[in-house]
Amino acid sequence: MIKVGIIGGTGYTGVELLRLLVGHPQTKLSVITSRGEAGRKVADLFPNLRGHVDLVFSEPDTKTLAACDVVFSATPNGVAMTQARELVAAGTRLIDLAADFRLRDPAVWEKWYGMPHACPELLAEAVYGLPEVNRDKIRKARIVANPGCYPTAVQLGFLPLLEQGLVDAAHLIADAKSGVSGAGRKAEVHTLFAEASDNFKAYAVAGHRHWPEIKQGLETATGKPVGLTFVPHLTPMIRGIHATLYARLAKTDMDLQALYEKRYANESFVDVLPAGSHPDTRSVRASNVCRIAVHRPQGGDTVVVLSVIDNLVKGAAGQAVQNMNIMFGLDERTGLAAPPVLP
Amino acid sequence: MIKVGIIGGTGYTGVELLRLLVGHPQTKLSVITSRGEAGRKVADLFPNLRGHVDLVFSEPDTKTLAACDVVFSATPNGVAMTQARELVAAGTRLIDLAADFRLRDPAVWEKWYGMPHACPELLAEAVYGLPEVNRDKIRKARIVANPGCYPTAVQLGFLPLLEQGLVDAAHLIADAKSGVSGAGRKAEVHTLFAEASDNFKAYAVAGHRHWPEIKQGLETATGKPVGLTFVPHLTPMIRGIHATLYARLAKTDMDLQALYEKRYANESFVDVLPAGSHPDTRSVRASNVCRIAVHRPQGGDTVVVLSVIDNLVKGAAGQAVQNMNIMFGLDERTGLAAPPVLP
Amino acid sequence: MIKVGIIGGTGYTGVELLRLLVGHPQTKLSVITSRGEAGRKVADLFPNLRGHVDLVFSEPDTKTLAACDVVFSATPNGVAMTQARELVAAGTRLIDLAADFRLRDPAVWEKWYGMPHACPELLAEAVYGLPEVNRDKIRKARIVANPGCYPTAVQLGFLPLLEQGLVDAAHLIADAKSGVSGAGRKAEVHTLFAEASDNFKAYAVAGHRHWPEIKQGLETATGKPVGLTFVPHLTPMIRGIHATLYARLAKTDMDLQALYEKRYANESFVDVLPAGSHPDTRSVRASNVCRIAVHRPQGGDTVVVLSVIDNLVKGAAGQAVQNMNIMFGLDERTGLAAPPVLP
Amino acid sequence: MIKVGIIGGTGYTGVELLRLLVGHPQTKLSVITSRGEAGRKVADLFPNLRGHVDLVFSEPDTKTLAACDVVFSATPNGVAMTQARELVAAGTRLIDLAADFRLRDPAVWEKWYGMPHACPELLAEAVYGLPEVNRDKIRKARIVANPGCYPTAVQLGFLPLLEQGLVDAAHLIADAKSGVSGAGRKAEVHTLFAEASDNFKAYAVAGHRHWPEIKQGLETATGKPVGLTFVPHLTPMIRGIHATLYARLAKTDMDLQALYEKRYANESFVDVLPAGSHPDTRSVRASNVCRIAVHRPQGGDTVVVLSVIDNLVKGAAGQAVQNMNIMFGLDERTGLAAPPVLP
Repeated sequence: MIKVGIIGGTGYTGVELLRLLVGHPQTKLSVITSRGEAGRKVADLFPNLRGHVDLVFSEPDTKTLAACDVVFSATPNGVAMTQARELVAAGTRLIDLAADFRLRDPAVWEKWYGMPHACPELLAEAVYGLPEVNRDKIRKARIVANPGCYPTAVQLGFLPLLEQGLVDAAHLIADAKSGVSGAGRKAEVHTLFAEASDNFKAYAVAGHRHWPEIKQGLETATGKPVGLTFVPHLTPMIRGIHATLYARLAKTDMDLQALYEKRYANESFVDVLPAGSHPDTRSVRASNVCRIAVHRPQGGDTVVVLSVIDNLVKGAAGQAVQNMNIMFGLDERTGLAAPPVLP
Repeated sequence: MIKVGIIGGTGYTGVELLRLLVGHPQTKLSVITSRGEAGRKVADLFPNLRGHVDLVFSEPDTKTLAACDVVFSATPNGVAMTQARELVAAGTRLIDLAADFRLRDPAVWEKWYGMPHACPELLAEAVYGLPEVNRDKIRKARIVANPGCYPTAVQLGFLPLLEQGLVDAAHLIADAKSGVSGAGRKAEVHTLFAEASDNFKAYAVAGHRHWPEIKQGLETATGKPVGLTFVPHLTPMIRGIHATLYARLAKTDMDLQALYEKRYANESFVDVLPAGSHPDTRSVRASNVCRIAVHRPQGGDTVVVLSVIDNLVKGAAGQAVQNMNIMFGLDERTGLAAPPVLP
Repeated sequence: MIKVGIIGGTGYTGVELLRLLVGHPQTKLSVITSRGEAGRKVADLFPNLRGHVDLVFSEPDTKTLAACDVVFSATPNGVAMTQARELVAAGTRLIDLAADFRLRDPAVWEKWYGMPHACPELLAEAVYGLPEVNRDKIRKARIVANPGCYPTAVQLGFLPLLEQGLVDAAHLIADAKSGVSGAGRKAEVHTLFAEASDNFKAYAVAGHRHWPEIKQGLETATGKPVGLTFVPHLTPMIRGIHATLYARLAKTDMDLQALYEKRYANESFVDVLPAGSHPDTRSVRASNVCRIAVHRPQGGDTVVVLSVIDNLVKGAAGQAVQNMNIMFGLDERTGLAAPPVLP
Repeated sequence: MIKVGIIGGTGYTGVELLRLLVGHPQTKLSVITSRGEAGRKVADLFPNLRGHVDLVFSEPDTKTLAACDVVFSATPNGVAMTQARELVAAGTRLIDLAADFRLRDPAVWEKWYGMPHACPELLAEAVYGLPEVNRDKIRKARIVANPGCYPTAVQLGFLPLLEQGLVDAAHLIADAKSGVSGAGRKAEVHTLFAEASDNFKAYAVAGHRHWPEIKQGLETATGKPVGLTFVPHLTPMIRGIHATLYARLAKTDMDLQALYEKRYANESFVDVLPAGSHPDTRSVRASNVCRIAVHRPQGGDTVVVLSVIDNLVKGAAGQAVQNMNIMFGLDERTGLAAPPVLP
């Protein structure tokens, strides 16, 4: 049994991680910390876990955490990097669900997250945890940077095109729509039900922290600079991301459907839909699957890719569990096999 | 392995049953019929089942069904009773998710469902599948009448009071609120998103088919006639029932909290919350749990019980699987252990 | 033109009041104060008012307010009572949309709102602003206590029965459901979209501040003590209250439909629906109407009344404008004539 | 007073038209027809109109309609064109809210709508009713083709760029999101609450009927062929369209903000937001306003325009009333002045 610790875990990513670990046959949840909720029963905060999780939130304590085989950090950005050295030194492997280890260049991290990086040397060895790209590196990684939700949906949608150099990489467009849980379990006015319900809006058009992360991933895939216009939107649903991706094809005689099917043929969690399909976000609700459809409207030179995930699962906690499975040599699907919940 | 057949199964109850059976380690889904969708892949209709269910809907055929150990009937009311004789004669056990076998008196059935009963002799032996009441009878039943969604929430909420004769049974009030999936997967104007969203209304105040079913169950529990005012409401959520129950206490010196905790102490799927609680419907989303809280506001003589279920799980498909587990001697929780999905 | 001032006005009640006053032909909005937003354009906070309201929020200043003919106070509870003396002394009439002047007994106020009353002598002269009950007193009032949202829906539903003494007043039940805007524009976790959407729950069963307000109104109507069980619920919609009311009839040979139609025959904003109806909350969305239906299920001795309002209009800002119209001798419907918005 | 008739009017466009006409001081609603609902009171079908509309739906009868000054046709596509000749011959002016007169080329109409055009000679004289483009022609038109909802939002967003030839017109992208009321008041499974709620999806990527309409409008504006990729999406809200538009700038030294502000300076119903804004769909709910923001992310060569409307108002009934106002020489804002409803 893998001994698991969780840092943070009072947000939506945390409760989802707990839900998935409850059903995971090879893990034992050993400790969960929270400065704000220390002493409170986990199941009091998250009533869905009554009868499933008996743990009490405890004060953060690196020694206890370092006794675990793996620690998931589900805290706000900037926390995991202050604890990483100690954990790694103790032989504990770290999966960070925040952004601390996602951007390879510490200067870029500092620019977008507004603080210097606390352990650049670990940043250098951290592995970006997108299994469909880095599976082999993840296996041996001491630190895995779990990808952001938008970056997961957008990269999985664009990768086959960019890896083959089939599109004008200088002018990619990602129009992405997220459910409101993506904003986290924070008391804020703009995500109140009475504000966000029966409403739709774009935000952060001038610049979103997931932009450099996506750009980095796409540039790695294609091997040259990428120009990306990324527009995130808030849509009145709890879970789900729908990325609608646009690119100009260098040539139009490719069988794009075959390209996508081949690229993801051996991936358990990427489902390429039949030609002509339109994936629903609900078709992946509460599951670790990414469903993709590829279109070339009116036979023109613009390719349209539709990519959907559950932002809390493949976009966060599920992908983290998938990474853990890889790191510990388990079948990648362990604990992640339940079908999506629909309706 | 239990060989399972499903009649119907193109509605929400059907897709939920399939989702649960996919995760059930002791069953093998052998056939699923649908007159309207025969020849279509199940996963085409319900994209959440892609990669989980390979079956194709087939034309109803009693011989194939009769080769199963158990058949779930997830059809509209009035269909199961026409097939029950043949199935039972073949030794197949039947769990009917519709209403055909719920009302013991064929005359009452005819009055509320508008057609004569097709097999009154089987009606007489059918067992009402509320495990918290009829567990022993369910074990040996050839036909189980799976309870309705409102009846499950209301009966579990009222039972402790009625079994002990603690309230004025002549004036019970059940104010119940259901998510829209309760209306089924039927093309109708009043359940369109643009009609049912951002709206709340009562319906069928003059009389709802679940009224005689609840009344029958409560009368059985208390051993005398029951007067019940039942008002169902439609609330803009997909899943969930919240029943708010009111009764006049015969005496006010009872420890109601202890009464409820004791009554359900050995029940895996009934969770009595701590005193002062208010259960959320989302705390049971996608799970087979009923959560109950009991209140006596201002210390008066009116007891208020709050009872929540997921209408598609404990109110339909989950309870059906629970009944199957009992009928085949399995642990009642088999295939039903996943925590609720929140948020 | 009536010169109007608004204290507070950064919440949902405030923006709704502004929306209604924009369309009111006899008022001129002169000042709107907010400590937190002073200096900010109103239309920056509420983009629906762009092009309609040019005012800037200003620091609270009693002198400026006292130059108005009428001041609406749309602040949290406990603020209006500290400013009432000065305003009234200056000849300005005050309509308080909070609770400061709703409860006649200062001791009851202190118990439920947790602070002593700042001006009990004005409390004694304040008029409870339910026009359907107190129209004549409102005309001359210096201070009008605008009723709460639940109290408006519940009282209008129960009044005809209680005024005629037709029901057992000692055992009334009000099961009420509110949209989330009723919780106000405050940053809190439990009203986030990801918490309140696709969910239904009761709250404050042990005691809600609207309970003594409703009780007081019903006791005035019937002339004797009232026993009331009041259970509020949160339902995933933005606007709307649906009150489902239950009472035991003293005798069952009354024509309840005629009773209700007669009681409200001359009321512009109470619409008694035809027998057998079920009002939708959306049928009153954005309007000042209360729609009511009365039922006696199965011809029994329990009467069921369904009463719906828009909590922000008839339950707050609209009723405040209605009160102002009465106070200034205008047609009661002035500025309130637009039809509800559906869908 | 303008004597008004409505053909059809049992859908969402119809009820919205009625709501707006109720508040219009210069019109008298004289007749409303419906084959399916003839004999039924309008207010029975649409309870928000109780007390506002006394009319009864009548059988379609061209003579009665021809006695009106103006007739709005709010029927399915293909109906208005069969009645247009007779109405126009009688001197009645026609505003068609369906698509019959939107596409100038009858062959294109036949291709996308699957039937030959019934009166090509009238098609030639019909005016496309986008006031911001065709105001002068609308004034004298006998037949106005009221634009589609997507086309209104997309054209208003793109026009300033295309009229000035500032972008690569061969590669425009319109990623549009619509509330579910856009699908109409038709009983269909995919727009049920339990299907469309908590879900997001694209549809009709291969080709949507609004594509040729938008293309035609943009080509007229820019005077050359346009290449347009148009992807519509369904989002879980009742009303609202959010169009996110992308184009490549020919040169990047333009002041785009000034361009948009100047283009719409004299338009009552187009509101260009301050630089850096993100319009909410709810900020135009129930109103005839289109709000637009223009962005150039990271100072690159891709312009992003955000354009929101209420699909039932500026996208249908409100624009129809605006057109009527122009046709009859009234102030364009008559009956359309009420502020949006928020929250």
